Amino acid sequence: MIIDLINHVGIFFFAISGLLTAADKDMDLLGGIFIAFMTSIGGGTIRDVLLSVEVEWLKSLSYISVVFAGAIVGIIFRERIKEMRRTFFIFDTIGLGLFAVYGIEKSLGLEQYPVVAIFLGVITATFGGVLRDVLCNEIPLVFRKEIYATAVIVGGVFYMIISVLGWFSTEFNAIVSALIIMIIRVLAVWKKWQMPQIREISKW
Amino acid sequence: MIIDLINHVGIFFFAISGLLTAADKDMDLLGGIFIAFMTSIGGGTIRDVLLSVEVEWLKSLSYISVVFAGAIVGIIFRERIKEMRRTFFIFDTIGLGLFAVYGIEKSLGLEQYPVVAIFLGVITATFGGVLRDVLCNEIPLVFRKEIYATAVIVGGVFYMIISVLGWFSTEFNAIVSALIIMIIRVLAVWKKWQMPQIREISKW
Amino acid sequence: MIIDLINHVGIFFFAISGLLTAADKDMDLLGGIFIAFMTSIGGGTIRDVLLSVEVEWLKSLSYISVVFAGAIVGIIFRERIKEMRRTFFIFDTIGLGLFAVYGIEKSLGLEQYPVVAIFLGVITATFGGVLRDVLCNEIPLVFRKEIYATAVIVGGVFYMIISVLGWFSTEFNAIVSALIIMIIRVLAVWKKWQMPQIREISKW
Repeated sequence: MIIDLINHVGIFFFAISGLLTAADKDMDLLGGIFIAFMTSIGGGTIRDVLLSVEVEWLKSLSYISVVFAGAIVGIIFRERIKEMRRTFFIFDTIGLGLFAVYGIEKSLGLEQYPVVAIFLGVITATFGGVLRDVLCNEIPLVFRKEIYATAVIVGGVFYMIISVLGWFSTEFNAIVSALIIMIIRVLAVWKKWQMPQIREISKW
Repeated sequence: MIIDLINHVGIFFFAISGLLTAADKDMDLLGGIFIAFMTSIGGGTIRDVLLSVEVEWLKSLSYISVVFAGAIVGIIFRERIKEMRRTFFIFDTIGLGLFAVYGIEKSLGLEQYPVVAIFLGVITATFGGVLRDVLCNEIPLVFRKEIYATAVIVGGVFYMIISVLGWFSTEFNAIVSALIIMIIRVLAVWKKWQMPQIREISKW
Repeated sequence: MIIDLINHVGIFFFAISGLLTAADKDMDLLGGIFIAFMTSIGGGTIRDVLLSVEVEWLKSLSYISVVFAGAIVGIIFRERIKEMRRTFFIFDTIGLGLFAVYGIEKSLGLEQYPVVAIFLGVITATFGGVLRDVLCNEIPLVFRKEIYATAVIVGGVFYMIISVLGWFSTEFNAIVSALIIMIIRVLAVWKKWQMPQIREISKW
């Protein structure tokens, strides 16, 4: 129940994030809606195809409705807020945390290995953004800059440990793990944390 | 029956369109055939994967045969016709209309929601071209310039309304809807119709 | 049995190839592991999705383990070997031959048409590299330069003919076909063999 809500809220924020990117690329109305759709539904679609389960947005119109709602909010929002980069970053970060936890939870529910579930969480959270970047002909920064996938992995491992220990309810664990992911990402950008480059590591 | 024919004719024209693009990119023979394959089969493959039905070109060799026929016609055709841009545009437009209607019809036959069916029609018609552009490292122009997806949506909505009203046979409705899509696209390019950009809308 | 081994060895070499590319792109540790993952698992994943069978790396942790092993070897290897381009080429070629034969063999086992099986062999062998190139925002050279897919097709046709004639055991046939693919690719690069461009062909 709350897990479904988390998924829809994640879709909403990623739809806004997608629309803002498309607007910056001078796309037209329909182009913006499509990029919003891809960004918010792309990661989950790839996850569902990999898991061989029915793709979510075919099952219920609630998904497409939320994408449209996010896109419309994005269009209105855009002009009011001048500091685009920070806004974009916040929506992207909220979407990241929610999608990661939802992807992990759904994969575990389908009895995947924990390691595989974390991978699928990363795919759910990052591949919408990768599709957005590839379609806008940008280098997907996901794997390059900032602590992005790393935040998902840390949050995912936390989620696993709490699940095994049985400390919190699933719902509470999901929310805490999503918050951990968001906080790590915010801290990483704020404090300019970076993973070491491969070049550096192989010199050790 | 006629729906299958529409699909194969669409594949034929998109294969030509793909080969002509590859030739312009100085690709070799095999590269051209692969781009023709991607352009003509890509959209339908993604649609089938999303619908969890068997991918069409694995079921019958007629699909691969038609791609090869289109590629060969493209190789011969190329030198005869000097005005490449117009030719490319015509084949692309015919493929667009046919694929859109086929995608919508197939999705409705699998009892998808009308809105989802239109989305899958857009995916069938446009994603082959998106794959072609991404593989050629070009910005996919689909969502950026011209009335492209918009034409599919207008034709798709027309198809839905006629289906509900029950005025025409399915076959006749499919042909009329495909023609509407093609005419809108031709008119849009001729009259330079454009969708408003998001930047402009959010200034209202 | 030996076919599974071929698949895992192919994954190992493609993981190294992916990590070396990522290192050259100044990616960080996690980015490198992800590109290694995509390069080595991407082609097989697309093949499995198209065949509507369970994606391999969800079924057993052996796949992910081999990717990590390849990535770690790549990190250590990198600094020792100065002639990166040649090393990269060797690992890429070994992966190519092994993946092509594995993809063909698996497709035939699922009773696909021989032509479709060869296509799926090409997809298995080349799409990991295509994903790697698209994610690094490079033009996928696969269909453009060198005898790459052509080598897979020649090896695939050889494999089919031997299967029909029943000369060798499946295992021996697989190894010989993989070697043929590797040798053609090495010879093609060494002797600078090229397929004719479409431009040239259409002038005949």
